[in-house]
Amino acid sequence: MRPGPQARDRDAFLAGLAALPEDCILASEEERRPYECDGLSAYRELPWLVLLPRTGEQVQLILRHCSSAGVAVVARGAGTGLSGGALPLDNGVLLSLARLDRILDIDYRNRLARVQPGVRNLAVSEAVAGHGLYYAPDPSSQIACSIGGNVAENAGGVHCLKYGLTVHNIAALKLVTIDGELLEIGAPAPDAPGYDLLALLTGSEGLLGVIVEVTVRLLPRPQHAGLVLAAFDSVESAGDAVAAVISAGILPAGLEMMDHLALQAAEDFVHAGYPLDAAALLLCEVDGSRAEVEAQVDRVRRLLADAGASEIRLAREEDERQRLWAGRKAAFPAVGRLAPDYYCMDGTIPRHHLGRVLATIDRWSHEYGLRVANVFHAGDGNLHPLILYDANQAGELERAEALGARILELCIAVGGTITGEHGVGVEKIDQMCSQFAEAELRQFHAIKKAFDPDGLLNPGKAVPTLARCAEFGRMHVHHGELRFPELERF
Amino acid sequence: MRPGPQARDRDAFLAGLAALPEDCILASEEERRPYECDGLSAYRELPWLVLLPRTGEQVQLILRHCSSAGVAVVARGAGTGLSGGALPLDNGVLLSLARLDRILDIDYRNRLARVQPGVRNLAVSEAVAGHGLYYAPDPSSQIACSIGGNVAENAGGVHCLKYGLTVHNIAALKLVTIDGELLEIGAPAPDAPGYDLLALLTGSEGLLGVIVEVTVRLLPRPQHAGLVLAAFDSVESAGDAVAAVISAGILPAGLEMMDHLALQAAEDFVHAGYPLDAAALLLCEVDGSRAEVEAQVDRVRRLLADAGASEIRLAREEDERQRLWAGRKAAFPAVGRLAPDYYCMDGTIPRHHLGRVLATIDRWSHEYGLRVANVFHAGDGNLHPLILYDANQAGELERAEALGARILELCIAVGGTITGEHGVGVEKIDQMCSQFAEAELRQFHAIKKAFDPDGLLNPGKAVPTLARCAEFGRMHVHHGELRFPELERF
Repeated sequence: MRPGPQARDRDAFLAGLAALPEDCILASEEERRPYECDGLSAYRELPWLVLLPRTGEQVQLILRHCSSAGVAVVARGAGTGLSGGALPLDNGVLLSLARLDRILDIDYRNRLARVQPGVRNLAVSEAVAGHGLYYAPDPSSQIACSIGGNVAENAGGVHCLKYGLTVHNIAALKLVTIDGELLEIGAPAPDAPGYDLLALLTGSEGLLGVIVEVTVRLLPRPQHAGLVLAAFDSVESAGDAVAAVISAGILPAGLEMMDHLALQAAEDFVHAGYPLDAAALLLCEVDGSRAEVEAQVDRVRRLLADAGASEIRLAREEDERQRLWAGRKAAFPAVGRLAPDYYCMDGTIPRHHLGRVLATIDRWSHEYGLRVANVFHAGDGNLHPLILYDANQAGELERAEALGARILELCIAVGGTITGEHGVGVEKIDQMCSQFAEAELRQFHAIKKAFDPDGLLNPGKAVPTLARCAEFGRMHVHHGELRFPELERF
Repeated sequence: MRPGPQARDRDAFLAGLAALPEDCILASEEERRPYECDGLSAYRELPWLVLLPRTGEQVQLILRHCSSAGVAVVARGAGTGLSGGALPLDNGVLLSLARLDRILDIDYRNRLARVQPGVRNLAVSEAVAGHGLYYAPDPSSQIACSIGGNVAENAGGVHCLKYGLTVHNIAALKLVTIDGELLEIGAPAPDAPGYDLLALLTGSEGLLGVIVEVTVRLLPRPQHAGLVLAAFDSVESAGDAVAAVISAGILPAGLEMMDHLALQAAEDFVHAGYPLDAAALLLCEVDGSRAEVEAQVDRVRRLLADAGASEIRLAREEDERQRLWAGRKAAFPAVGRLAPDYYCMDGTIPRHHLGRVLATIDRWSHEYGLRVANVFHAGDGNLHPLILYDANQAGELERAEALGARILELCIAVGGTITGEHGVGVEKIDQMCSQFAEAELRQFHAIKKAFDPDGLLNPGKAVPTLARCAEFGRMHVHHGELRFPELERF
């Protein structure tokens, strides 16, 4: 860790920010306390100083000053991130973008909206709903999470299978570099010239710059949607059904799976009407014109029946469709009622490994003595095992973390990745040493240096140092190659 | 220009490549001559040395040697590029990837194919056609162009409106750095951890590394397609019709426009059956299931009629559809028969400016005394004005280039870009000074340095030096701000 500024230097640092209105500065411990963690609340750190600018110019001023003073900066949106990407530093500035919360311009002709980073995800769709448009990425936290944070994490959601991640739904960015310089990146054109900085910055977890404006793409709301529910007697057959639907060339708007523990918890919580005896449940939604929806629903039903579904239901009416989704959407808090604490994982795997990976997780769940519920974006192969534990029981948190790490290594070993949509943050930084070879990590560091030579932006997150990987002692596993004896069956 | 190796040093340089089989080395002038230009044949340079490796390991060997000898390298695929991106250097190595031409693996379950960079674009679709799959990006040169070149230029095509550019249709890359190191980049997962190097490298025009393997995504071939032809009395009304179709939320598989000169030339050449009295022609294709196609065709016809089409035809049968497309596909060579030479531009503009920009180009065409035919991806707002000239008439080439540059500046001024799919190469490097501000260009150079600190990969292409921009004397125009008095009507 760099030797950081000490508390007694704070006044000296603030003297250089005299141009910043006083109410943009939170210096007392009481004011700083609410910023000590993001959605990954197992990690906490009281920030040295919290700054809450109102304009892009104030962001430039702050970064210019941090740069010259050598003070590190952690940018924060709504703080809903699940990998600790906005965990503060005890010797750095926590830069909240919450007050840059205006929708600047809506261009209906080109279906684009220019928004500030602190605008809530759902607020964009609400603002354009009257014109039959919406902003497609829909992370579970969309009521609260902000567009800037969505860009930093390249957020997905239930519907990203068909409509893409954040990177596919934005057209341009304004970014402030650590030197306080403003870069305008991207264009609505199909292939903008120059290096694709728009994609490079999306998902860079606050390590390359601070986003002060985002131009998002708007889509026409689908005219119709049909939701098919299918129950299965085993997670394996549900997993195989997912592969069958995708292989048939169907692109569902969403294709979600819940295992027995998750669907029971959801049913207890919101009474969605799920079949309680199922080992696994699939929710498959298709959208488009009425004719298209009907044709696709027929094909999906046939495919699910062929894949061995024990029950298939079609939600034709909007209220039934909403009720079935309500269970899925409430599944995380519902599972949360089963134990004092849970740890949400976010690995991805090739879809055809779904059944076998879920069976392995189930076996490990018994081995570690911790229940695991599975609720996830099956169509994307994006797993979200929820490991239940009780932090007040000695050793349970450590066992949960060890099981989580093992699941991530399993994802890598079958050719997947350690994160699908939550980012690396502080949570999965050690697993990056397994995901990537040294040459690739070195290239990441070279990119970081091209934006932030002194390493002041969100240090310690997302990309591990080579020294850390050496200490962690893990060797890179090339996609699909095996390292663990227990994985040899894959 | 860096002081490069002289011809007399070639033997010394080759001595360091003793491990490379002799038939991989083309040193005589006669052997090097075919490589002096790519598809932009107005620019020619005899390469100092041509190397034709057969394996990725040989590429590593070559780059490692170039790096230590300080010799620059220009990578080349099939040489069909239209912006001079593979123009050789008289003091550098021309590295042809043509012999890395194997399809390594086809994974039908996950709909992925691993191919070497020299594999032709169309060969991928041909290899998987028996399984009802194809590779979506379809540049006009797809019979000849290679996947590696497609990645380097982020190639598009008629169907990229619906199916995306190359970057949206690849899952992973293997890249050799200038140091000869192999990087494995990307994964089939929805959001791979780490910086998005896959997107950064796609379209980087050979400036960051040499691609030795590409994992492409395969799509199920659409079951049905319907093609609607519409004739208009003015290019403005055709342009407005394009905006109307897209605004209505329809996503055509392709939406192409031809103006009067282009459609006449195409009709003379292939007898597609186009209405010869039309000022402009739209071809709008939709695809999907039969029900979906029929529903969309109805909506498209209504929208085009409302937009003032003077004639609307539906190609229901496959042979008529193919005939109508044949005219569009042959439009470039057809226009080529109208004059000894033509210069193909590639700007993009926001769709709602289509009509007015085409009218301005028409006015300038008279002013410069050069005919201009327009054949382009209207749905993307991606213009391809073809400026007709005769290089044997003194001053015509210069006038054509001046008119081309003016058209690109017009594209920038209305909020568009200087390239939609052909890349910057040597052709549009000066216009990059107008497209980007100094801070953005500096960031591009920092990225370049993070991959290639000595600037040995494809020097002089794609990203201008700041010195060059100062000499060129152009100021950056921020999107939509005006600089030319003649553009004030926009």
